[in-house]
Amino acid sequence: MTAYADLTRDELLSLKAALEAEYAALAAKGLKLNMARGKPGADQLELSMPMLDILDAKADLFASDGTDTRNYGAVNGIPEARELMGAIAGAPADQTLVLGSSSLNLMFDAVSHAWTFGVCGGTPWGKLPEVKFLCPVPGYDRHFGITQRFGIQMINVPLYDDGPDMDLVEQLVASDAAIKGIWCVPKYANPTGAVYSDQVVRRFAALKPAASDFRIFWDNAYAVHHLYDEGAQILNILDECAAAGNPDLAYVFCSTSKVTFPGSGLAAFASSPANVADFAEMVKWQAVCFDKINQLRHVRFLRDMDGVAEHMRKHAALIRPKFEAVEQTLERELGGLGIGTWTKPRGGYFISFEALPGCAKRIVGLAKDAGVTMTGAGATYPYKKDPNDSNIRIAPTFPSADELAQAAAIFVVCVKLASVCKLLGE
Amino acid sequence: MTAYADLTRDELLSLKAALEAEYAALAAKGLKLNMARGKPGADQLELSMPMLDILDAKADLFASDGTDTRNYGAVNGIPEARELMGAIAGAPADQTLVLGSSSLNLMFDAVSHAWTFGVCGGTPWGKLPEVKFLCPVPGYDRHFGITQRFGIQMINVPLYDDGPDMDLVEQLVASDAAIKGIWCVPKYANPTGAVYSDQVVRRFAALKPAASDFRIFWDNAYAVHHLYDEGAQILNILDECAAAGNPDLAYVFCSTSKVTFPGSGLAAFASSPANVADFAEMVKWQAVCFDKINQLRHVRFLRDMDGVAEHMRKHAALIRPKFEAVEQTLERELGGLGIGTWTKPRGGYFISFEALPGCAKRIVGLAKDAGVTMTGAGATYPYKKDPNDSNIRIAPTFPSADELAQAAAIFVVCVKLASVCKLLGE
Repeated sequence: MTAYADLTRDELLSLKAALEAEYAALAAKGLKLNMARGKPGADQLELSMPMLDILDAKADLFASDGTDTRNYGAVNGIPEARELMGAIAGAPADQTLVLGSSSLNLMFDAVSHAWTFGVCGGTPWGKLPEVKFLCPVPGYDRHFGITQRFGIQMINVPLYDDGPDMDLVEQLVASDAAIKGIWCVPKYANPTGAVYSDQVVRRFAALKPAASDFRIFWDNAYAVHHLYDEGAQILNILDECAAAGNPDLAYVFCSTSKVTFPGSGLAAFASSPANVADFAEMVKWQAVCFDKINQLRHVRFLRDMDGVAEHMRKHAALIRPKFEAVEQTLERELGGLGIGTWTKPRGGYFISFEALPGCAKRIVGLAKDAGVTMTGAGATYPYKKDPNDSNIRIAPTFPSADELAQAAAIFVVCVKLASVCKLLGE
Repeated sequence: MTAYADLTRDELLSLKAALEAEYAALAAKGLKLNMARGKPGADQLELSMPMLDILDAKADLFASDGTDTRNYGAVNGIPEARELMGAIAGAPADQTLVLGSSSLNLMFDAVSHAWTFGVCGGTPWGKLPEVKFLCPVPGYDRHFGITQRFGIQMINVPLYDDGPDMDLVEQLVASDAAIKGIWCVPKYANPTGAVYSDQVVRRFAALKPAASDFRIFWDNAYAVHHLYDEGAQILNILDECAAAGNPDLAYVFCSTSKVTFPGSGLAAFASSPANVADFAEMVKWQAVCFDKINQLRHVRFLRDMDGVAEHMRKHAALIRPKFEAVEQTLERELGGLGIGTWTKPRGGYFISFEALPGCAKRIVGLAKDAGVTMTGAGATYPYKKDPNDSNIRIAPTFPSADELAQAAAIFVVCVKLASVCKLLGE
């Protein structure tokens, strides 16, 4: 393989002509493929279908504490659901609230609560002249959407393989009381698959923020979502915070959206006793209770962490080949060309692709015109502004193996074509 | 029967002694009964158990538009759920959002949205020097809880049998731009059972608020909750608002909490196209989607408005006797004594009892000490302050017939005893 940068202008021009022909032939197929969102495939959804038989018309619908899950009550969740979701979040049941089905909604509510009512009795963020959040990048578009919605100023922080740039994080939070939070996906980060190292987690727990109401928004979305048997282990942020004398520093969020059914699962908030009390006080005014029948259904289906692990191994068996197929195509087609790098995640839902600077929008546009929808270029950055226009998020789980192979084949041609154009100065 | 007011002091004293003995005997039974909350009884919950068989592991889980309800998507609800809930709310499917399981949460979110982001582009309420809501009283404690939580000043408006005092409502909303909303339960109001007359609904629709972002919070919680075959019909507020040239005046909320399972049902927001777009814009940032499997489960179980009506007749058959038993006890024991009046609702979940002024707290306290938990006196008023200390909400649905008979028997003794004490100046 000759790196594209080493090709002469004539070689690039003839390569471009060949790629254009190849692209035109692929585009002419009129395909309609989607690698945009981290959605489970239909085969993954089938794994949880037995859950629909767990509670039938003759089922005992009483929780372990005698709560009739069919009626009002238990606004913070039934005990066994709090225990199970607490185990996933890394918190005891009494420090875990199981609320609704969307952890994103809980994050939105946490920001909204802080905005209007303040964190643990602090000044409502909405009353402050400015509020800022740190955003490890690339990151999750919907996190950035929440802070954007509230007009919170977002500050990019580089995300490395072992976590965010902690020198920068430490310096920023210590020096600026307007910085109230940071968005983290500590395990198999969206989109890079980064896993926070023990040292990074300890440095998070030891932060000395200028703002007493600074909170780490620890979205452990992929806590149990390993692709390989040897799953990544990260330190328990709540334990580390407590040990560091900062018990209230972190909010932990998790859900079963990619364990059972997206949108129809359980979502949980876990934190220190003080934070949980503060959050529960908000919830108390907000709703009478959430869907406890679905809580019971989940607990009876997943049982415990062993049951969760067993279930997640079935997911991994279905999606690991998809990740590997994309990685193989990328390696085979792009290896050695010097026009892109990509992550090889051990879990989670995404592969992160770094194109040559200035090429991401063009690649995504080319792919779209050829029938392959990718996540919009820029989506992985606050304000959808990727300063290098280089990051592309690949979501390999939803398409079938066949569709994925076609989509990946088109993607690599788009990468090549856009890169040649860039090197030609077009 | 001699009215208590006509008794001599000696007669009152001897009556008091007899009542104290009766009360002591009842209290000695050590009962533990609850008439506090509008919760369905266990027999009512049984009515919806077949719903748990509707979707099993072999079910087709695709919505009418091809949406896989098991996956992400359709944040505003699947078409058939929007149609069904729209039929209950009185709106077409495309003006109905089916979101989560708690209509109270939707009301909270509507206020929170207005507070932080403003209604349809208006000034966020949180940025205004003062915000006020009109509160027809007696009313629903959790409505008042939401506005209290936001520090919104609540203004009492008398609720009559045919709706709120509309002269006062018209005058207040026209003259004060700080008044941004009014809490309404238009059919079988909580707690009086009042049904808004056609004239009241038309006057609501024709309001000329000083604030362009004034909204009627139309909580049609008991839209289909008739106790008798001849159900009350109210005018469609959205149609009337549109006809009056005020299409954006009303937010309509409803849920299936007391149709299927409280907390595990469907909740909906319905309004004008402009309001729905404004609400959907909020939801878009807040969550990826809600529980569509439960939406499908509900539609396949309830089918349509005929199915809902048939199901609600079964509820009525179970709870009508409870309402009538309480009413008969009240009539038999208190009729003609001049120490209380009560409503005879044709639907909904409550009987509203008006004691002699200054007696409600005492009655509820006596009942509690005798083992009968009632809704806290004052709860039906903003800030839990009943200016006359006279209103008591009776919730007859949750106890069994037997428990209810005992609770009602204790309640009337408490009413008599408190009334005698009051007349004696004690």
